[in-house]
Amino acid sequence: MPERTVFYVSDGTGITAETFGKAILAQFDVQFRAVRLPFVDTVDKAHQAVRQINHTAEHEGRRPIVFTTLVNMDVLHVIQQHCKGMLLDMFGTFVHPLEEELGVKSHHRVGRFSDASKSADYQRRIDAINFALAHDDGQSDQDLAAADVILVGVSRSGKTPTSLYLAMQYGIKAANYPLIPEDFERQQLPPALLAYKKKLFGLSIQPERLAEIRQERRPGSKYASLENCRREVAAAEAMMRRAGIKWLSTTHKSIEEIATTILQELKLNEAVG
Amino acid sequence: MPERTVFYVSDGTGITAETFGKAILAQFDVQFRAVRLPFVDTVDKAHQAVRQINHTAEHEGRRPIVFTTLVNMDVLHVIQQHCKGMLLDMFGTFVHPLEEELGVKSHHRVGRFSDASKSADYQRRIDAINFALAHDDGQSDQDLAAADVILVGVSRSGKTPTSLYLAMQYGIKAANYPLIPEDFERQQLPPALLAYKKKLFGLSIQPERLAEIRQERRPGSKYASLENCRREVAAAEAMMRRAGIKWLSTTHKSIEEIATTILQELKLNEAVG
Repeated sequence: MPERTVFYVSDGTGITAETFGKAILAQFDVQFRAVRLPFVDTVDKAHQAVRQINHTAEHEGRRPIVFTTLVNMDVLHVIQQHCKGMLLDMFGTFVHPLEEELGVKSHHRVGRFSDASKSADYQRRIDAINFALAHDDGQSDQDLAAADVILVGVSRSGKTPTSLYLAMQYGIKAANYPLIPEDFERQQLPPALLAYKKKLFGLSIQPERLAEIRQERRPGSKYASLENCRREVAAAEAMMRRAGIKWLSTTHKSIEEIATTILQELKLNEAVG
Repeated sequence: MPERTVFYVSDGTGITAETFGKAILAQFDVQFRAVRLPFVDTVDKAHQAVRQINHTAEHEGRRPIVFTTLVNMDVLHVIQQHCKGMLLDMFGTFVHPLEEELGVKSHHRVGRFSDASKSADYQRRIDAINFALAHDDGQSDQDLAAADVILVGVSRSGKTPTSLYLAMQYGIKAANYPLIPEDFERQQLPPALLAYKKKLFGLSIQPERLAEIRQERRPGSKYASLENCRREVAAAEAMMRRAGIKWLSTTHKSIEEIATTILQELKLNEAVG
């Protein structure tokens, strides 16, 4: 049984509230049950949210944690006045000092994405997702000049999820290219990539972990055997070293950590925010 | 020229800091230049970060905004003592009141993802990404029983990015299935989907916007013509109404908003957090 219920209340998607709340709560050895309450953008919906939170408080006999990212002040006031949870007002806490620092008032507009279809930043992310899909697994050599980064590595080293994450989170155009037996025989990176050496980034992985992942996909195959995984990983790492490209091991890393490291290593770390 | 530089300093990836900081700063009509400083996990790196921030302060003649999500107290102290930016300590601000509320100390472990490869939650996300890719664009009818949601809609209505987002952010298994001329002739949803009606969710889009998107892909084609887009959208919406499935228009929505609405409508809104 969870020890505490946590609500994420937002007049937008609540993704910011949840991302932040999860990171904070991960600091505690307590089991939480999370409930998202997105699009709470009217006084009516605020009262509904309050009812749900207060019902939980009563039912569980302890007050829930309530993270809010509310920019609509009328909604916030309803929550502040009636909610029996522990209220953590993430926006209010930081917006006021920032208003003083910047010397301007915040405009209390809802949502990071309110004009999504018109925003250049958003369009860049969608284009990058399409680019990642069109250039997944070496599907296309076309347009590689447009790539911000080209990931290389053996099959199942983490290239596809990393490419998609770079696209979705940062609008980075990431192609990915598998290293295959033909490349190992030639002991050379795939010829299509030689013109783009500065954009290349290698992903490797411990052979034991790779064999595990491949076994799930093709149990009992030569492809998944530890011996073959060892050979491929050794050949791929040797090739990346010879080519002088940057690379990392994905074995103990999340896609978030892999993506962040790539941005840092290729100096793509500055972005208009 | 940007009016203010903002730093995101973290001993992990900094993604939480950036997500949150961006949402806050979007409340201000000020142009920001964002600089990510991830993996600041030693006192040495903290001093490096301070140098970079203070250099910017001097160079620009006003103090940068500095969002931190630091759990390493030694690192935080260096920043607190020496940094000439406006410090917004996102963790400290909320962790202390939570320690009181929960009656336990936070453990100051770095990173939401520190044991990524071992975490069930993380593995669920990776599996969901693989599922979305294997079930993109009606590629496979196999395993649809394992889907949490099956998105349907005309080509280019936003199904693929939404499926990938649901997978990446929430570990939700989303298949997606295009509605094509054969379906419109039959005036029936694709036969493979009939057994899964409760999991279906429709995406539609304004024909004008659809034509724009398709024109970029296949300029001058019948596929992209406004007339054809109008016909397909009308047929698709009629079909979704007849089938009694929930649907929304993606025209003015971001993938975050689409995904959040789907979770809400299909009552997938509660998650272990």
